[in-house]
Amino acid sequence: MAVNKIDMNSDVGESFGNYKLGLDEEVIPLISSANIACGFHAGDPSVMKRTIAIAKENGVALGAHPGFPDLMGFGRRNMDVSLEEIQDYVTYQVGALQAFGQAQGMKLQHVKPHGALYTMAVQNPEIWDAVAEAISAIDPALILFVLAGPGREDLEAVGAKHGIRIAFEFFGDRAYNPDGSLVSRKLPGAVIHDHQQVAEKVLKLVTEGSVVCADGSEIQLAADTICVHGDNPAALQLVKRIRETLQDSGVEISSPATFL
Amino acid sequence: MAVNKIDMNSDVGESFGNYKLGLDEEVIPLISSANIACGFHAGDPSVMKRTIAIAKENGVALGAHPGFPDLMGFGRRNMDVSLEEIQDYVTYQVGALQAFGQAQGMKLQHVKPHGALYTMAVQNPEIWDAVAEAISAIDPALILFVLAGPGREDLEAVGAKHGIRIAFEFFGDRAYNPDGSLVSRKLPGAVIHDHQQVAEKVLKLVTEGSVVCADGSEIQLAADTICVHGDNPAALQLVKRIRETLQDSGVEISSPATFL
Amino acid sequence: MAVNKIDMNSDVGESFGNYKLGLDEEVIPLISSANIACGFHAGDPSVMKRTIAIAKENGVALGAHPGFPDLMGFGRRNMDVSLEEIQDYVTYQVGALQAFGQAQGMKLQHVKPHGALYTMAVQNPEIWDAVAEAISAIDPALILFVLAGPGREDLEAVGAKHGIRIAFEFFGDRAYNPDGSLVSRKLPGAVIHDHQQVAEKVLKLVTEGSVVCADGSEIQLAADTICVHGDNPAALQLVKRIRETLQDSGVEISSPATFL
Amino acid sequence: MAVNKIDMNSDVGESFGNYKLGLDEEVIPLISSANIACGFHAGDPSVMKRTIAIAKENGVALGAHPGFPDLMGFGRRNMDVSLEEIQDYVTYQVGALQAFGQAQGMKLQHVKPHGALYTMAVQNPEIWDAVAEAISAIDPALILFVLAGPGREDLEAVGAKHGIRIAFEFFGDRAYNPDGSLVSRKLPGAVIHDHQQVAEKVLKLVTEGSVVCADGSEIQLAADTICVHGDNPAALQLVKRIRETLQDSGVEISSPATFL
Repeated sequence: MAVNKIDMNSDVGESFGNYKLGLDEEVIPLISSANIACGFHAGDPSVMKRTIAIAKENGVALGAHPGFPDLMGFGRRNMDVSLEEIQDYVTYQVGALQAFGQAQGMKLQHVKPHGALYTMAVQNPEIWDAVAEAISAIDPALILFVLAGPGREDLEAVGAKHGIRIAFEFFGDRAYNPDGSLVSRKLPGAVIHDHQQVAEKVLKLVTEGSVVCADGSEIQLAADTICVHGDNPAALQLVKRIRETLQDSGVEISSPATFL
Repeated sequence: MAVNKIDMNSDVGESFGNYKLGLDEEVIPLISSANIACGFHAGDPSVMKRTIAIAKENGVALGAHPGFPDLMGFGRRNMDVSLEEIQDYVTYQVGALQAFGQAQGMKLQHVKPHGALYTMAVQNPEIWDAVAEAISAIDPALILFVLAGPGREDLEAVGAKHGIRIAFEFFGDRAYNPDGSLVSRKLPGAVIHDHQQVAEKVLKLVTEGSVVCADGSEIQLAADTICVHGDNPAALQLVKRIRETLQDSGVEISSPATFL
Repeated sequence: MAVNKIDMNSDVGESFGNYKLGLDEEVIPLISSANIACGFHAGDPSVMKRTIAIAKENGVALGAHPGFPDLMGFGRRNMDVSLEEIQDYVTYQVGALQAFGQAQGMKLQHVKPHGALYTMAVQNPEIWDAVAEAISAIDPALILFVLAGPGREDLEAVGAKHGIRIAFEFFGDRAYNPDGSLVSRKLPGAVIHDHQQVAEKVLKLVTEGSVVCADGSEIQLAADTICVHGDNPAALQLVKRIRETLQDSGVEISSPATFL
Repeated sequence: MAVNKIDMNSDVGESFGNYKLGLDEEVIPLISSANIACGFHAGDPSVMKRTIAIAKENGVALGAHPGFPDLMGFGRRNMDVSLEEIQDYVTYQVGALQAFGQAQGMKLQHVKPHGALYTMAVQNPEIWDAVAEAISAIDPALILFVLAGPGREDLEAVGAKHGIRIAFEFFGDRAYNPDGSLVSRKLPGAVIHDHQQVAEKVLKLVTEGSVVCADGSEIQLAADTICVHGDNPAALQLVKRIRETLQDSGVEISSPATFL
């Protein structure tokens, strides 16, 4: 029997100056890929350095988490920027983080766009293409994290076109539509709060490659990485629950560079 | 007879968004090393990319020009930041520029601190040490540009300690004290406005290794690179005059990576 | 015969730190209302103070020109901010400018949203309503500048609802559609470059209350203020031409607080 | 017997966007004057509005807490800005906050410089003079908060010169030198952690006008306002202790506009 592998990723390094955000020291040991903010929507140079140190100490793979230049809105507000501007913002932020990695003898594994940049890309695949092109030009070993769901073939084609690997991301705490897309946050039931339910949902995805949708139907969905959160103690409990559930079933938690 | 070589460097890439600053397209073809702003005191991601493209097209070596996070003050105001913060700011900015270089198949040659960061380092060599350490950790092939003058041995020791090359910089349009330091800008005569005088001063430095000081005395001073400006048409004329004067005397204008 | 009056407004105070933008000293004497940037998309505290001083010296009415917190994009990129955020950004910026006015013994006359905030409001009148509410809460004597054209009654209702005056703005250098809206900048002929044509268009608007549209039809359009530009010497020439054309026909150029 | 009165002030409104800082809702009901951050070193437009609402609800006087444009350093790093720049930064920030006050029918009572701006002013009274001039030009009813201690007469003269009231501030949790200055934070014992000791120190100041210094000597010191903190639950406990100790001794806690 093949051993199942899955990555667990979390957004970290979101503190800024005097402002602390997230329980990085607690959540990083529980994950395999760290998405580190790069100073535009969150994070600052000193926070980036410290976050890399924590990830290195825990053997967690490093990823850039570039966002829009909107600290006041935490990168969560859509901005009508051009594809070229998106590429430039990604290049800038990935480069800044990469240097902190170099200084600690670490290479970046992946790039996961943050907030509105991610959700805009989900709506407009030209953004995935632009981001992939920017990443590939810096280092074609970088893996791009994208949303699992509809349009998988197009995203695989984007990866092939630019010679980079694509990791598909699953959200265990979100309800899915039968087409594999996420139920809008504006709708009731979009976010699943029960820890056991989330953990089982993740386990089913990893071991069976399927999801039970909001309407009760079951669909096939393949993913390489699970998004988890370390914002507060309850979120940490959920991460631990997911880890234990996976490990109890023989699933290996491992960064995607090891299996993609 | 040995061929004399000297580098000519200029601060470029200082535009920001809708704001244009400097005649980059005119001055870059006239220099051998470009100090490119990195988004803290000036420059933005798109400007950085375009500036690298111009430098590449003209065979000009790339350098990062990191400054304080003070866009409103153009990085010219002293800030009471810690040595560790300085290192983090330098790492961040060098990394960001480095990625734009990678995307265009170019490596960075050097790092020259900007404005108040440079002048604070001249006053406090611990800052040179901190910057050298940060640079070396990213890429020990990077050359650090420092002010020629008193303390040369200490700066050479900083370079040796961190395993990087040091390039000493000369200001042709500034008056010098007999100890090799610059005459303060607050004093009359600190800045030399006559183009011919500046060109001859540079030539004497390159061919004879000496400078006539403000008090008429002549001192020995060794430098690897000359700072020039491209802010306005008159500044451009001066750059051309310096180039012609040097080339007419058989001096080769060349980036320091070729001779250090 | 009644004397015709019209206001001429221009965006000024758009410099930032070391970055100079616009010919404020030349254009301000030619206008009657100054729209002064307030530090979010352009302008800084020192620039705001100096710009008010120039306006005061020339007897030009002061207005706030608030924009999005997007210096890198000069406030020209749509941002998906909430109506409440818009109100807060407007309040902040109007307040900041108001204090510089108080310090020089001047009151603000008006508020004109900048760039993407203006164009988003034209698309979504709820934004005009939000801005009007914010302005009215600070000082109901403030006049809100809005785009003349379709929806005039709705905008008048917004003014009445919040107890503030509305000034309708005309763009002499833009082509109009028969419904009174501006021809999109994406279409050919959207911007009129011929100075004489622009000046005559403005004169016709002021004296006849009508515009010849892009399709040749003539429509009625009422406006209180004309938008002009001071970005470059050619723009200044156009402002002078418009002024002379109006004054030669007996039109009085006057800020809207004097006639609304 | 005269009723003793004292003001209690605290820095609030220091959250920014997604970043929460301070227990504003808990501490504001316990104080009489709120120093509200204005968006340069901390605070944002929406936070400013909400903080004013909380203060209004609790009958707490409003003050602006302007700082340096250094969000990354929380305004705690000295910056070599000119006196004119300081004035412009103060005017801008006071104005921004003032507008949020106007919108809620509230006037600002005072201005207290933040962080490095405050400590630089303590070192260089020209900064107090510059700030006083800026404040007075906006609204001469504004009270300037300054540090009690040496140089009191000079600061009173600054107030008289610019026609504004000065409130002298005391730090109950800091050790004092015999000249009335604060013991440097770099020295041991500079900060007093024992709540009872702090409360008694404040009471002695208010009722006897004297302080026992770090060396055991007792000096006369007059103050109008006590600085307290609401950063964490322990700080809140201290504020309550101080309040109770004062009230139990018949001291009235009241904003300085009521007694200066």
